Amino acid sequence: MNIGIIGGGAIGLLCASYLSQHHDITVLTRRKEQAEEIRTSGIKRTVKGETFRASAEARAGITGVFDLLIVTVKYHHLQEVLDELSTLPRQRILFLQNGMAHLLDLENWDTSHSIYIGVVEHGAMKVSDHAVNHTGIGVIKWGAFHPEDTADVRNALYETPAHFQMIYTDEWKRVLEEKLLVNVCINPLTALLHVKNGELIANPAYEYMMKCAFEEALSILGLAEEERLWSHVVSICKKTAANQSSMLQDIVKGRETERKAIVGYLLKKAQAQEIMTPHLTFFNRSLEVLEKKQTKSFE
Amino acid sequence: MNIGIIGGGAIGLLCASYLSQHHDITVLTRRKEQAEEIRTSGIKRTVKGETFRASAEARAGITGVFDLLIVTVKYHHLQEVLDELSTLPRQRILFLQNGMAHLLDLENWDTSHSIYIGVVEHGAMKVSDHAVNHTGIGVIKWGAFHPEDTADVRNALYETPAHFQMIYTDEWKRVLEEKLLVNVCINPLTALLHVKNGELIANPAYEYMMKCAFEEALSILGLAEEERLWSHVVSICKKTAANQSSMLQDIVKGRETERKAIVGYLLKKAQAQEIMTPHLTFFNRSLEVLEKKQTKSFE
Repeated sequence: MNIGIIGGGAIGLLCASYLSQHHDITVLTRRKEQAEEIRTSGIKRTVKGETFRASAEARAGITGVFDLLIVTVKYHHLQEVLDELSTLPRQRILFLQNGMAHLLDLENWDTSHSIYIGVVEHGAMKVSDHAVNHTGIGVIKWGAFHPEDTADVRNALYETPAHFQMIYTDEWKRVLEEKLLVNVCINPLTALLHVKNGELIANPAYEYMMKCAFEEALSILGLAEEERLWSHVVSICKKTAANQSSMLQDIVKGRETERKAIVGYLLKKAQAQEIMTPHLTFFNRSLEVLEKKQTKSFE
Repeated sequence: MNIGIIGGGAIGLLCASYLSQHHDITVLTRRKEQAEEIRTSGIKRTVKGETFRASAEARAGITGVFDLLIVTVKYHHLQEVLDELSTLPRQRILFLQNGMAHLLDLENWDTSHSIYIGVVEHGAMKVSDHAVNHTGIGVIKWGAFHPEDTADVRNALYETPAHFQMIYTDEWKRVLEEKLLVNVCINPLTALLHVKNGELIANPAYEYMMKCAFEEALSILGLAEEERLWSHVVSICKKTAANQSSMLQDIVKGRETERKAIVGYLLKKAQAQEIMTPHLTFFNRSLEVLEKKQTKSFE
């Protein structure tokens, strides 16, 4: 296929690098400089100490017609991308955002494009404008946002490299919800407490607070299987004990976090259902304060 | 009496200004410049728009013998002051710190000084090195840390200005505990959420979190009368709805907060009694993170 990848962050570069083995790739970046760098240097991918180089087309701006467009920008840049996509001819678009807030935007998006949703279970770190480190090998699970015939895309994506499988599922919403549940348990707390993931289960007081967040999220999402899901959250804390969560890294580096995509979505859903969410409300506001801490003024 | 006042902050200047009407005052400052300024300009006190000037002796360092020494420094500077007081001849010392952590230090202090504890219920803002704004007229309640004859000091402090009463009470510990309870409900939350005091009862989610802190503190302090005390906390939020708590002001101004004197004391007491305090533990750690936010490194 002719695949366009919107966004040159860690996930964008990772997708471009692997998918270039079976497809023609164009990376659509925001900055001209990055597009130039990708065109001239290719994309460098490091996985388990080994380095691979992939070549890809690249240009700044969102233009053209593709067999598939993959949107990899963070949620807080999604709205600008949707506005630009609205001007393009009808095509297939796969959205790979974290959290679930983008579903609300996509529901309200008046478009004739075919929309797919994917959940990225890889770990990746951007090293430079043309280099990415594949730190955790997972899969991408994806499905159609609206019921439709997905046979061609499924066939085209069937053949993927071993370290980069694209798994079709009708259960994509459930997958997204379980990932959101893990994210809302681990991300805000590690950012506010400035601790690594493992600390959340090593300190009983922190684990209690995580359980409070978990229970509020579970009730908002209407999920059953409380016991299995809590074990799942705890097991992720164990497996990633030595990691700094992405939200903690964002706070430390003074970047905008994915607060709105994760906690913000749940709070919106809670409000619509009139569910009381004191802990999530508190996390949301104090994360916002922590993000803005550089501006010391009180409005 | 010949009264020495240790510390030239808001409370130190306030005490010096009022007590100078019936006593000889010496302000003992840390910085030479402040002592010089007080000696040459006197102390300016503004209350309800009116300004008064008091004259006082002042010098840097803690030396001399007084009929009464009043220690007004914040808790996080107390240890240095105790070390210096240990070298002085036996005298009467009144401690006016916020929180209750200083009680633990005083219990462990091997000294022959007579120790009194006071609870300041005034509002005061330091305007300059020799000027203070008396923003809230209250009283100081005080008592003896160890049982002893307090007749002379009580008599000497009996005559005080109308706006600066010194009320003796055997129940000083109870007064301190109720003030601590109010402080631990209002201070950490307003600082973490960056809101004024009234917001804690205007937003049901914030009020719920305040109730969680309240219940943990109540259990640690072993206080009964839950209903009366909760109404008391809520009434203070109402009365001070438009105020920024001292902890919020400290965070906004990048100063060290009274976290250790307030939350730290309760956590120590909880640990000794093996009481579970997830919310206070969380507030303590995230306040620490917020205080240190300027250094963006992850240790």
